[in-house]
Amino acid sequence: MPFDRLIDNIKAKNNPTVAGLDPKLSYLPAYLKENAYRNYGKTLEGAAAAILEYNKGLIDALCDIVPAVKPQCAYYEMYGWQGMRTLAQTIQYAKEKGMYVIEDGKRNDIGTTMEAYAAAHLGETQVEEAACSAFGADALTVNGYLGSDGITPVLKVCKAMDKGMFVLVKTSNPSSGELQNQLISSEDTVYYTMGMMCEQWGRELMGAYGYSGVGAVVGATYPAQLQELREALPHTFFLVPGYGAQGGGARDVAPAFDQNGLGAIINSSRGILCAWQKEGCDERDYAGAARREAIRMRDEIVGCIQAG
Amino acid sequence: MPFDRLIDNIKAKNNPTVAGLDPKLSYLPAYLKENAYRNYGKTLEGAAAAILEYNKGLIDALCDIVPAVKPQCAYYEMYGWQGMRTLAQTIQYAKEKGMYVIEDGKRNDIGTTMEAYAAAHLGETQVEEAACSAFGADALTVNGYLGSDGITPVLKVCKAMDKGMFVLVKTSNPSSGELQNQLISSEDTVYYTMGMMCEQWGRELMGAYGYSGVGAVVGATYPAQLQELREALPHTFFLVPGYGAQGGGARDVAPAFDQNGLGAIINSSRGILCAWQKEGCDERDYAGAARREAIRMRDEIVGCIQAG
Repeated sequence: MPFDRLIDNIKAKNNPTVAGLDPKLSYLPAYLKENAYRNYGKTLEGAAAAILEYNKGLIDALCDIVPAVKPQCAYYEMYGWQGMRTLAQTIQYAKEKGMYVIEDGKRNDIGTTMEAYAAAHLGETQVEEAACSAFGADALTVNGYLGSDGITPVLKVCKAMDKGMFVLVKTSNPSSGELQNQLISSEDTVYYTMGMMCEQWGRELMGAYGYSGVGAVVGATYPAQLQELREALPHTFFLVPGYGAQGGGARDVAPAFDQNGLGAIINSSRGILCAWQKEGCDERDYAGAARREAIRMRDEIVGCIQAG
Repeated sequence: MPFDRLIDNIKAKNNPTVAGLDPKLSYLPAYLKENAYRNYGKTLEGAAAAILEYNKGLIDALCDIVPAVKPQCAYYEMYGWQGMRTLAQTIQYAKEKGMYVIEDGKRNDIGTTMEAYAAAHLGETQVEEAACSAFGADALTVNGYLGSDGITPVLKVCKAMDKGMFVLVKTSNPSSGELQNQLISSEDTVYYTMGMMCEQWGRELMGAYGYSGVGAVVGATYPAQLQELREALPHTFFLVPGYGAQGGGARDVAPAFDQNGLGAIINSSRGILCAWQKEGCDERDYAGAARREAIRMRDEIVGCIQAG
């Protein structure tokens, strides 16, 4: 059932974190870029080739200790279709290495169009009698501004293909409150209302651990809301961005977990991707540095959950 | 300035409509699919090749009478990176033919990530000293759930590159009211609040016709709200989906326009794409049928504006 595979991975590695693959070119070691530019020039194709090598090195170094990766679509789309090919190849590679793949696309649209997005990112695309996999991630982030119509088609694919989704509830960015903190009918905030919709949407997709296949994105940068939502949404698994570079610490994310230490996965992107720059190590050890940072992050967060 | 080019196009063709390019395979004539499958098999590549030919035929038939096209990203993403290549080629082809291209991606994210989306779809991607165009549309639809952080980076690119954006305000789908019609502080709806944010965001990007570069998506299926928002948002240009197959008629969209007959562009996707099926003409005349439907739609809507 949805997210059971993710939770199994988290338990097996005793690590409730996900490595965000947001590969800005400035994060890449020079030798990877030079190799790629030699073959393809300083072009979208050259950049996309360098990023694929970079991602593979990271996945190799992380796959036995980190349960999941989260590629952010924007950092692939900016390199055009060549970047999207790297995204598809990255997803494929991570799955082959046993990692759970959360594609961060924040997609949203009306029903018929969401069917197309669900096929693209989680399900299969029918080309006459042939069923083809376009991106084939395990879970997708989505935006619920359009209501149930935009969620139901994704639910359907999640049910049929054992996939999951995370709906934006309370995002980690500074201006997230402009709309999300507004009070609806003087009672509940927009983010709380969206959270309750997740509980509702998830009813048909309950998993063995008590969490449904409809998760929520709740930022580490708002710990009070994280705690409020953890209590209000007992069946909703959280994807928590904002740890590390965005300012959230391990204590801030502790309220995201239930009494069994489950219920959430914490994302770090820049902290892991740029570990070699922060450490000041040889650039050819970028993946080693990422692994050391991933272990540090795991131990810090697991420590805070156990202490909590 | 933003949208001035779009409005110039609308005035020159006396046609405030946009052709939505949402190419489901079932909309394509058989001969186009057979040609492509012969070359590439029944694969994502085969489907993407057929869609590119289909789109080019439509653009050729429409470019002298319709000011803009709106490709919907989902229908390209579902064919993987091969589909995204077709999207990039479609955008390029439409621009060469003088059409204004609104990419319907409804993108949204935190600030740094929105910079990447803005570069991907409207601006340029820097690969070292080379500035590369990934998709290069003229405007992009975005979702404002994350507040200003998700809009400001797009504004910056719009300003620098003479591009525009449309923010989801009141969408055309049946469940759009679940969140969008909720009352904030017992006063304004969520959609009205989002609309007022568009007026605010657009202040720095005013064009010659009195409309800013920050437009709004407002569905034809809710004519009362369309009228309410037209009055409340005098500087916000509307992209109006929901005409035709979704149920909106020409009288429903008339309130989207100002007293000069400007201020909005009405989208039709299925009506134009499937005109050959509805007409029952020879499939090789699919583009001719699309043109006849585009003319019918133009005359109907222009007639309603003048009568209004």
